[in-house]
Amino acid sequence: MHDMNLLIIGAAGMLGRRLGEQLANEGALGGKEIMRLALSDVVAPTVPTAWKGAASADIADLSAPGVAARLVAQRPDVIFHLAAVVSGEAEQDFDKGYRINLDGTRELFEAIRQVGDDYCPRVVFSSSIAVFGAPFPTEVADDFHTTPMTSYGTQKAMGELLLADYTRRGHFDGVGLRLPTVCIRPGKPNLAASGFFSNILREPIHGSTAVLPVKDTVRHWFASPRTAISYLLHAATIDGTRIGPRRTLSMPGLSATVAEQIDALRRVVGADAVKLIRQEPDPIIAGIVANWPEAFDAARAIELGFAAETSFDDIIQVYLDDDFEQANRSRIKEPA
Amino acid sequence: MHDMNLLIIGAAGMLGRRLGEQLANEGALGGKEIMRLALSDVVAPTVPTAWKGAASADIADLSAPGVAARLVAQRPDVIFHLAAVVSGEAEQDFDKGYRINLDGTRELFEAIRQVGDDYCPRVVFSSSIAVFGAPFPTEVADDFHTTPMTSYGTQKAMGELLLADYTRRGHFDGVGLRLPTVCIRPGKPNLAASGFFSNILREPIHGSTAVLPVKDTVRHWFASPRTAISYLLHAATIDGTRIGPRRTLSMPGLSATVAEQIDALRRVVGADAVKLIRQEPDPIIAGIVANWPEAFDAARAIELGFAAETSFDDIIQVYLDDDFEQANRSRIKEPA
Repeated sequence: MHDMNLLIIGAAGMLGRRLGEQLANEGALGGKEIMRLALSDVVAPTVPTAWKGAASADIADLSAPGVAARLVAQRPDVIFHLAAVVSGEAEQDFDKGYRINLDGTRELFEAIRQVGDDYCPRVVFSSSIAVFGAPFPTEVADDFHTTPMTSYGTQKAMGELLLADYTRRGHFDGVGLRLPTVCIRPGKPNLAASGFFSNILREPIHGSTAVLPVKDTVRHWFASPRTAISYLLHAATIDGTRIGPRRTLSMPGLSATVAEQIDALRRVVGADAVKLIRQEPDPIIAGIVANWPEAFDAARAIELGFAAETSFDDIIQVYLDDDFEQANRSRIKEPA
Repeated sequence: MHDMNLLIIGAAGMLGRRLGEQLANEGALGGKEIMRLALSDVVAPTVPTAWKGAASADIADLSAPGVAARLVAQRPDVIFHLAAVVSGEAEQDFDKGYRINLDGTRELFEAIRQVGDDYCPRVVFSSSIAVFGAPFPTEVADDFHTTPMTSYGTQKAMGELLLADYTRRGHFDGVGLRLPTVCIRPGKPNLAASGFFSNILREPIHGSTAVLPVKDTVRHWFASPRTAISYLLHAATIDGTRIGPRRTLSMPGLSATVAEQIDALRRVVGADAVKLIRQEPDPIIAGIVANWPEAFDAARAIELGFAAETSFDDIIQVYLDDDFEQANRSRIKEPA
């Protein structure tokens, strides 16, 4: 049986780090032993402590000359392309967003093509629901058009198009995933407009207050970090011929209102936790969030075996199981 | 009143040439006098004989360094971006297709952005129904996703995304048009898979035989060259705020079967003309055409004032009015 060489680009990010750790723990992907784990990011990625095989941890900018060619020179069997400048930064810095998110992606795809010689890796590309723009139907269907309202969404939509064309031409076997908003995101509150969806759960869980800047009737689309990682792993091993020419899939998620999030917090953690949520309406954040989709009909992905949480209680429990202990330790070390 | 400076990129192509001629004849666009007509293409564009104002005819490759900056240095008020490597060539030559159709378009948009200083021209971008990929609904709606099945369609879809993002950020005021298949295309039969839709009308009109390689039940989406030009002109002057953030519009057309084309030929030209059509089934062409859309619900464009022919008789009559005489003269000079 052929062994697996894996490459994770964007390996120092929240998902990239978890993906590496899970692969290290499992030691295999799709029933094949992992021989080599190559990690790359613009900041130093950490080789998981559980990993005993060959590894490399590379600090590099994918859009810089020669980097992509160097990364694919070892002919990884699966390439997870998770590297991106996030939405806010891509909006603020036009050139950097296009350079990293568009040119970086194209450099990678082109480097794979240039290897030639029957090299045809699986490429798992993390796209985003930001490829869609308002106004939305109640449920965004698999054939709804991509009309992004941010530069980040534009760059991801262009990446999806390249992914499909390079795949169609046989240069690699690509699968794109539009991940739901990941919740509960671990770590400290950040300034992302979507941050409150996690803050209002995570902070009260740890006994801290959190700000809710929108009405509790706001509805959005969620999956836990654990589920997001399961999507990346499933995308790495799924039979590409089952996907057909439309290579990017809207992932299943849980559609929930803020009120439903809070009800779940009350049930799973308690009424005292809910009291730590402070309502402070922020019209700017409310305005941004009003242009986000509320739900998807992810029929194609469900048919292909991707599965999301079905209750917010489960999403909160995943945080308690996977993140609470470590987060609590680091909060004790570094009080806010 | 501010006068108009115009730039046509792709000015030597079938539509670019006609557009220039019509602008020269009218001398004005949107009620404003045209002062300057700048023409550019990879082969020498011809300044229309009717044109008396300032003109330039430029041979340049938009994707070459510095070309786009030079073209926009005169700050044209309206830029028609019609330049493209066509579908077949973009499929055969991967690098050339991406260089001209994607990089060239991006170079143009970026050059406009770099002018800065409140410069914000109208950019009319000719996209294509090739941004869509089978399977199709009976009528392709305005919110149907763009999943192209060719590199050409991929490049056009990426151009649409850039057009929307640069417009959203205020670098220019873009309008993209997905033109129907232009019919009756003047000139000699060519090897494009879509060529027969024009060949089976044009050749019999001139007393020559034509080959029909598909069944007469094949249905497709059409507009005359005259209507295509009217779309470009309307797009140049329409109020951009009425379009909203989704900047590319599927243009209205006439959905017709080959049998309906032939019936119209019989009515407008006569039964003898129809006898010149020879059925020679070609499974390769039939297979390509089977993946093409049959009809669009172009509600957005119709609402914005774009209007197509409503019968194939009209489409044939447009050829007789606009092209027959000149085509006949050149056929007499150069017998097949």
